[in-house]
Amino acid sequence: MVKQERAAKTRSTLVLAAAEQFDRDGYAGTSLAQISKAAGISLGALTFHFSSKGDLADAVETAGRATTHDALTTLGQRACSALQQVIELTLELARLLEEEVTVRCMVRLARERQSGEQWSGMWLPPVRILLHQAYAAGQLRRNAEDVTALVEHLVAGTEMHVRERREGHRASSASTDVALELIWELVLSGVSPSNNCTGVLPQATGATD
Amino acid sequence: MVKQERAAKTRSTLVLAAAEQFDRDGYAGTSLAQISKAAGISLGALTFHFSSKGDLADAVETAGRATTHDALTTLGQRACSALQQVIELTLELARLLEEEVTVRCMVRLARERQSGEQWSGMWLPPVRILLHQAYAAGQLRRNAEDVTALVEHLVAGTEMHVRERREGHRASSASTDVALELIWELVLSGVSPSNNCTGVLPQATGATD
Repeated sequence: MVKQERAAKTRSTLVLAAAEQFDRDGYAGTSLAQISKAAGISLGALTFHFSSKGDLADAVETAGRATTHDALTTLGQRACSALQQVIELTLELARLLEEEVTVRCMVRLARERQSGEQWSGMWLPPVRILLHQAYAAGQLRRNAEDVTALVEHLVAGTEMHVRERREGHRASSASTDVALELIWELVLSGVSPSNNCTGVLPQATGATD
Repeated sequence: MVKQERAAKTRSTLVLAAAEQFDRDGYAGTSLAQISKAAGISLGALTFHFSSKGDLADAVETAGRATTHDALTTLGQRACSALQQVIELTLELARLLEEEVTVRCMVRLARERQSGEQWSGMWLPPVRILLHQAYAAGQLRRNAEDVTALVEHLVAGTEMHVRERREGHRASSASTDVALELIWELVLSGVSPSNNCTGVLPQATGATD
């Protein structure tokens, strides 16, 4: 039992160290030797637990998906309007990207390795359902699909914001969730002071309204 | 002279082939052998022109920055309102990301290698100036810095959209510039049907208004 606990602790240390390395340098840019060094665990012990870099990356992705799943499940239990739920969900995604290295790394690894479900596959379906509910409840000016596309862009922007903050490009800028909340305020009421935006856009698209 | 032209053509073929490879697999995930094979040019000829992977990556970044610079210069000559200019600029960035492999690759390489100026360093300063002009002209409901942050998020989302389309995750979705134009329509007039969004956001931030 004690031995099992120790093994579980070693695995968890390795997964966290691997997540830090993969997240910073990408899958191709990371070696097992670097992870072993960062974890303070010998390469022999590492390969006892994870036989390859791919195995370890799989474990990081599994951990990141589990953390995301738990956070979304907790959120789903709150009682507020559909549009509020979408906003809360995006702010929670911002928090996960900022604070949970396994989640941030999972997003990068799934994209680079084309391995299993992409991160957006976990939160985009509930966002779409909620936005259709919001539209039906008269909470949206535009159709739900357009707003879903906007949410995707904002979450992608949030990921970039987190990565640039971590790389020191924007040491002085607002924290990611505060930045996203300000953007939501702006987006809910609109950038233009009047609601008549004719003439501001280069040409009428009129494709989906 | 003919010899010089041939050398220039070989260099240009190598830069384009390198851009395709780096853009798809990242800096660490690409080898000179792969680039040589993709370009149909021997490894010996490749290393005659570019002595290292870093040299070739530098050449791709230089090409991507030059293309971006030219596009921004052309845009700056149009006569329209400051807010329209910002929108046109973002649509041009979307087009560059979609169509110009050296630009798309430069964005990725500068981020991965932390080499020289990031892409946003080229377009964010003019966007910020234009948005301050737009605010002064009464074209914005919120202050220019909030709108600048929104534009950064939208362009980051646009980059992600392009990459996901290229990887086949969204074969059927709208082209990137049409997607961005729809999002601008939405963002200009606002997501909420009323302009009173009190109670939709989880808490008042009131940080910058």
